[in-house]
Amino acid sequence: MSDIGVIATLRVQPGKEAEFEAVFAELAPAVRANEPGNSYYRLFRTSETGVYKVMECYAGAAALEAHRASDHFRTLGANLAPCLAGAPEIERLIAV
Amino acid sequence: MSDIGVIATLRVQPGKEAEFEAVFAELAPAVRANEPGNSYYRLFRTSETGVYKVMECYAGAAALEAHRASDHFRTLGANLAPCLAGAPEIERLIAV
Repeated sequence: MSDIGVIATLRVQPGKEAEFEAVFAELAPAVRANEPGNSYYRLFRTSETGVYKVMECYAGAAALEAHRASDHFRTLGANLAPCLAGAPEIERLIAV
Repeated sequence: MSDIGVIATLRVQPGKEAEFEAVFAELAPAVRANEPGNSYYRLFRTSETGVYKVMECYAGAAALEAHRASDHFRTLGANLAPCLAGAPEIERLIAV
């Protein structure tokens, strides 16, 4: 079974960038510490103000589902939502 | 100095996918083995046939330049070029 990559694009409301980054600073270590099926999870700023991308990698579909169902993702994701300007765009990839 | 992320999008000519993937199978371990400033370098297939994305991360601009100037990147990159359908699209990101 191939690893699954994800590139998530997140648009943050103007002025909410610091709050968004602070929540993510809790989320990223929680993912890495609690998800044995996650091998990469990192937040980046793009060249467009307020637009971020998360690069992610999981050991297959079950690991990606475990991420989405995890307590830390649900709890901290609920704190991210009020910072966002729209629904995240999720691109799913297959590792070669 | 922040880490630099790269998402490289590569379009491969129809029928050249296996050749492209074989060259990349040499390139990726060469990057990880020879570039202390590289922390991530992984090839993924997208949902579009023949379109690949590489997720990359470097410890700053000097490390990214070292990657581009490296012998393995120049040599193996020359072997990738005949597989491509156009110039790679490179998106540069700043790690949060």
